[in-house]
Amino acid sequence: MKNFLSFADAGDYKALLNQALEIKKNPYGYQHVGKNKTVGLIFFNPSLRTRLSSLKAAYNLGAQAWVLNAGADSWTLEMADGAVMNGSTQEHIKDAIAVMSQYCDVLGVRTFPTLKDKEADYSEEVMSKILQYATVPVISLESATLHPLQSFADLITVAETKKKERVKVVLTWAPHVRALPQCVPNSFADWFSEIDWVDFVITHPHGYELDPKFTKGATIEYDQRKALEGADYVQAKNWSSYRDYGQILNNDPSWMLTNEHMRGTDNAKFIHCLPVRRNVEVSDEVLDAPGSLIIQEAGNRTFSMQTVLHELLKQK
Amino acid sequence: MKNFLSFADAGDYKALLNQALEIKKNPYGYQHVGKNKTVGLIFFNPSLRTRLSSLKAAYNLGAQAWVLNAGADSWTLEMADGAVMNGSTQEHIKDAIAVMSQYCDVLGVRTFPTLKDKEADYSEEVMSKILQYATVPVISLESATLHPLQSFADLITVAETKKKERVKVVLTWAPHVRALPQCVPNSFADWFSEIDWVDFVITHPHGYELDPKFTKGATIEYDQRKALEGADYVQAKNWSSYRDYGQILNNDPSWMLTNEHMRGTDNAKFIHCLPVRRNVEVSDEVLDAPGSLIIQEAGNRTFSMQTVLHELLKQK
Amino acid sequence: MKNFLSFADAGDYKALLNQALEIKKNPYGYQHVGKNKTVGLIFFNPSLRTRLSSLKAAYNLGAQAWVLNAGADSWTLEMADGAVMNGSTQEHIKDAIAVMSQYCDVLGVRTFPTLKDKEADYSEEVMSKILQYATVPVISLESATLHPLQSFADLITVAETKKKERVKVVLTWAPHVRALPQCVPNSFADWFSEIDWVDFVITHPHGYELDPKFTKGATIEYDQRKALEGADYVQAKNWSSYRDYGQILNNDPSWMLTNEHMRGTDNAKFIHCLPVRRNVEVSDEVLDAPGSLIIQEAGNRTFSMQTVLHELLKQK
Repeated sequence: MKNFLSFADAGDYKALLNQALEIKKNPYGYQHVGKNKTVGLIFFNPSLRTRLSSLKAAYNLGAQAWVLNAGADSWTLEMADGAVMNGSTQEHIKDAIAVMSQYCDVLGVRTFPTLKDKEADYSEEVMSKILQYATVPVISLESATLHPLQSFADLITVAETKKKERVKVVLTWAPHVRALPQCVPNSFADWFSEIDWVDFVITHPHGYELDPKFTKGATIEYDQRKALEGADYVQAKNWSSYRDYGQILNNDPSWMLTNEHMRGTDNAKFIHCLPVRRNVEVSDEVLDAPGSLIIQEAGNRTFSMQTVLHELLKQK
Repeated sequence: MKNFLSFADAGDYKALLNQALEIKKNPYGYQHVGKNKTVGLIFFNPSLRTRLSSLKAAYNLGAQAWVLNAGADSWTLEMADGAVMNGSTQEHIKDAIAVMSQYCDVLGVRTFPTLKDKEADYSEEVMSKILQYATVPVISLESATLHPLQSFADLITVAETKKKERVKVVLTWAPHVRALPQCVPNSFADWFSEIDWVDFVITHPHGYELDPKFTKGATIEYDQRKALEGADYVQAKNWSSYRDYGQILNNDPSWMLTNEHMRGTDNAKFIHCLPVRRNVEVSDEVLDAPGSLIIQEAGNRTFSMQTVLHELLKQK
Repeated sequence: MKNFLSFADAGDYKALLNQALEIKKNPYGYQHVGKNKTVGLIFFNPSLRTRLSSLKAAYNLGAQAWVLNAGADSWTLEMADGAVMNGSTQEHIKDAIAVMSQYCDVLGVRTFPTLKDKEADYSEEVMSKILQYATVPVISLESATLHPLQSFADLITVAETKKKERVKVVLTWAPHVRALPQCVPNSFADWFSEIDWVDFVITHPHGYELDPKFTKGATIEYDQRKALEGADYVQAKNWSSYRDYGQILNNDPSWMLTNEHMRGTDNAKFIHCLPVRRNVEVSDEVLDAPGSLIIQEAGNRTFSMQTVLHELLKQK
């Protein structure tokens, strides 16, 4: 593993998943790998789970860590190559990233999409520059289009709870009050469409089709009830339109996941990356049911990060 | 000890106090207890002493720690059960606290009173929810009504400096420019009214009576001079009215503690939780006198926290 | 070493430089010095390099660290002695610094100049108060007039790359869009005018003369081309006027350092403290040339800090 930005970087996902399950059983047993290592974490926007699980993962591994809130703690960054910096930006990302690389052994970065410039977002303009200038391995803590640590944590959660050889996993769009990125559903599709013991189905209203480079031919079923039939796992999540980029096309409240929707499943477990808008995306009854794995799933963020850190640091 | 929210949680206070004095003598001698443990610290408002002493306490104990500035670093929290979250709140406290519990072994939380809704504040609405959703032990870093780590530090300070078997300890109200919570005086009363070698007296203008559930029948003397007579320790502190909730009823500058007030004491030591409005609450001459213990007292915040962390983590 | 605020505190600079080069070769070999030690870091304004390199230095040394963003994380500070604190300031610096000293073994502080009150800035009013109230050693993370950790890192960078016994080092003023402090050039002069194997030249437009107490008789050459002739190292940096205090007197773009300027040097290496306004202070071609040492120089901030921490903590 060189960097960790998408499913492709996982390499042999079965080996990585087994490593994660091993690390979860023995979280403090790998501290020889983290000794004298420093994990750098840069946030361009707020974070709770990613920030704290990354710190916990570093600590479990015996490493140290620092967190930088870009903008608030440090300087406003210039992104354009060749810019004459006579405006409000104070430091070029080229210099900032190269410098930060001096102070850590691996760099986690959270960026975000514009939701306005599809081209810039889907070319991962900011993350690409970070990769270009970093001199240590880079971990995506969520980028403009993907959130691989979340999907890896979802995979760990499904793997450690499944009761059948094969499971049906459904990703269902959910209403929301704001236009959200496609990162989580893109990434979920990027991972779950590749897992050979998963039957993967995506359901959403017309117009919310995700980028085919992430769905990779997964079944798309526009009838939510039909999609949920016999599901073993349901992940609900809002996203804005990829086609009409960043737009909220419809916000049909009947798509809010409720017990009534869950009735057609095979007593499915519920997962969600959080934060969740309760009683807008998903009803309280689903979120608080015994079959809801949301807290265990959040807990697995520690182990997806710790496994990735372990891979990247053991090579050093 | 299950959580640490008030004097009642201290259990056998003499044993806890002795443990604190032992830990202070040998602060790095208990690192087997903190090894591979992570202390989570959440602040809903600014903090200097609590933030830094909690970090120092964790480090002394060989533990790691993280700090989250709620709101700034992460998401705005919904407090109402059953809320339809279609407004500005981004995550329910139910989820946030359960998730944070995944990333630490003990959770310190600073909340604050509204000073408007007495019922909500005095039922500890926010802290109660946190207790309900946390799956690790919770330490109050100051709640709507109490500040137990401060009072415990005050007790350590008095215990390690007292020259007599029994001492008279006086809590005196002081003027201020803003309406402040009752947390510190409530908590001071909660603790010092229970110490069997302390004669405890509270003095304040009429209308500033504290909640009797915390004063527990302590002597209340409205004549400040009389209250201070023969005192061995004086704690000055402003608070707003409990009766006329959150109001500043009078701000009589003659209540500012000066050398002239201290003259009637038995050469009393001075304590204050800090921050202090100099020359408004207390005069410079008192704060900077040899008998002022304010810096030693702030230093003891490390040891009150370290002792509580030690109690909560040694059980794990 | 008692504190670290300027070149004078370095004592025998050759010994300190050798220590830094040793530590850089073996960064984790000195952890007996940092064990059970805590480094406190206080920032009154944003920072990237200083914040992160200080954390890395502490971690390398086996120490723990905390960071406080003064103002944002904690309280607004009163600076005036004897103030009646009935305004907006919430805590006196006297108390804040004495308290912070309780929670660490060494205190790094970044302050900043007013650029309006020359007298206050050049008497280091704020840093003097900090020194007065701190009860642990103090490290300047940049003060109103100096930035000694940067200059020490510059010295390490020159020392480890120089190919000649004696080298010519030129500090050249550069244009900028904002009025900047004189800290970096003052400090660079404070250090490099004392190095016995350096021929030190300063060049700037008329009116940008630095305080002679820092330039100490260094050669000042107003003709930039002439100054750069035969240079082995060039440091470019903007600063506002010391004479017409805090003013931008002229912003002649011909002073921007370009390849054309570098042609007269002896194939000089380029250094800059960063952040740099690209194509305003210095052209991209100079910053990105093979002879640019800016990233290595930023990396050496870890070792200047680690060396100073080592000196201050080994005595404890």
